[in-house]
Amino acid sequence: MACDRQDPLALAMQQAVCGGGKRMRPVFVLLVHEVLGRTGRQPVDVACAVEMIHAASLVLDDLPCMDDAAIRRGRPTLHRVWGEATAILAAFALLARAGEVLRSGLVAAGVAPAHRDALTARLAQVVETLCRGQLLDLGLVEQSCDLDRLEAVHAQKTGALFAFAAELGAACAGVWGEEREALLAYARNLGLAFQVKDDLLDVTASQQQTGKAQGRDAALGRTTFVSVFGVEGAQALCDELIATARDAIAPLGGAVALLTEFADYVRTRAA
Amino acid sequence: MACDRQDPLALAMQQAVCGGGKRMRPVFVLLVHEVLGRTGRQPVDVACAVEMIHAASLVLDDLPCMDDAAIRRGRPTLHRVWGEATAILAAFALLARAGEVLRSGLVAAGVAPAHRDALTARLAQVVETLCRGQLLDLGLVEQSCDLDRLEAVHAQKTGALFAFAAELGAACAGVWGEEREALLAYARNLGLAFQVKDDLLDVTASQQQTGKAQGRDAALGRTTFVSVFGVEGAQALCDELIATARDAIAPLGGAVALLTEFADYVRTRAA
Repeated sequence: MACDRQDPLALAMQQAVCGGGKRMRPVFVLLVHEVLGRTGRQPVDVACAVEMIHAASLVLDDLPCMDDAAIRRGRPTLHRVWGEATAILAAFALLARAGEVLRSGLVAAGVAPAHRDALTARLAQVVETLCRGQLLDLGLVEQSCDLDRLEAVHAQKTGALFAFAAELGAACAGVWGEEREALLAYARNLGLAFQVKDDLLDVTASQQQTGKAQGRDAALGRTTFVSVFGVEGAQALCDELIATARDAIAPLGGAVALLTEFADYVRTRAA
Repeated sequence: MACDRQDPLALAMQQAVCGGGKRMRPVFVLLVHEVLGRTGRQPVDVACAVEMIHAASLVLDDLPCMDDAAIRRGRPTLHRVWGEATAILAAFALLARAGEVLRSGLVAAGVAPAHRDALTARLAQVVETLCRGQLLDLGLVEQSCDLDRLEAVHAQKTGALFAFAAELGAACAGVWGEEREALLAYARNLGLAFQVKDDLLDVTASQQQTGKAQGRDAALGRTTFVSVFGVEGAQALCDELIATARDAIAPLGGAVALLTEFADYVRTRAA
């Protein structure tokens, strides 16, 4: 993203999306597209739109009124560099831009108009779901938190965007019906497993590995899969979710082997 | 907007858009559509989308890290009622929803696909412009502020959404070319005049009239048209902008008389 050196809004937007990270969601869009046998042009803009939404949501999550995070992806968070007002406005502008990148990306990927309309309509639902998940997460109280409740919150906060990534990858490959449903089930379970692993890494991995402060959840008194089920319980849950994700795509056969590897990466990642 | 009583995000979104206000921008969309001779179905959803973008931007403007406003439209501001996190997430979700309401509204209004794509692409530009205008406004320093600088900031912060409203109203009426250019010139001048009048009302009108705390700009040490040019200077500027707006649409003839009245309303409004 080229931008004017004198334009703090553009610079902050650039930091938010170009500041590193694992790129799980855009890679997932491209993986789904690839395993479905499409060898043509990759839907890169569609994948970027998903990352832009994710990046904007992280800027908000890190704000003082939410997680009050100082470090993200090994750098000071956006509001620490640019101030809160610039960070919030950059997230807002990024979301608007993501909608446009998604729309034009779907055109470039040759998705039919009716499907494009349905997918851009889904964008609004997914963003609302992310926001609702974030709010619920901020309000979680450990004493009254069981597995169903935790999973319901993170299905919204994390699972929804993974599922949308799968939906977009499949749509760009022109795939609907049962294959798509299997991929969505995979994505929802993978998204939850990713979050459980995030909670585990907060306890077990160093700041150098994750690019985030270690032990942040405990310091903030956050209710997480680890605080509720312990390290071993959370690891078992992560393994179970990964197994369920892999089972969901088993009927699709050997063509989706890359997705099995992707699930194993989520289970074993160290950062 | 119907919503679950247990859902703070939906309730906050509802307060942001259904909490009153003058509805200048959506009315302007409908007025432009009407004066262009279209008697069919009004583009109500398109007008609502513009109000949703405006409402979301006001939620952000009112935040502690920006204007730190306690009162808006005669009620406590969103973050005072729901907390900062909910307010920010509600604004974010509203913006996403606005994009979808705009898209489906343009379909319902019968705007051709290529024009729809261009207008939804414009949405992202306009939101980015609003954000940049807000940031510039927060950073204005009176000593180095001249008319060109103030106008440039408010052309972004206020004028851009007025111009977009005109553009949408004209598109829904199927009008392009010179008529549209005249309406855009009208809208840009009217938007600036509206902002100058806002600055004047901050000094001259009561909280009961405006629904906002009186003297807020001066209390915050904000650089406004009034702080730079005084009450008389700002009123003269407002009159001049209104005259320029009216001149811009004069070639369109008697059919646009309603827009002349609308400009006079902006000039003389007391709230």
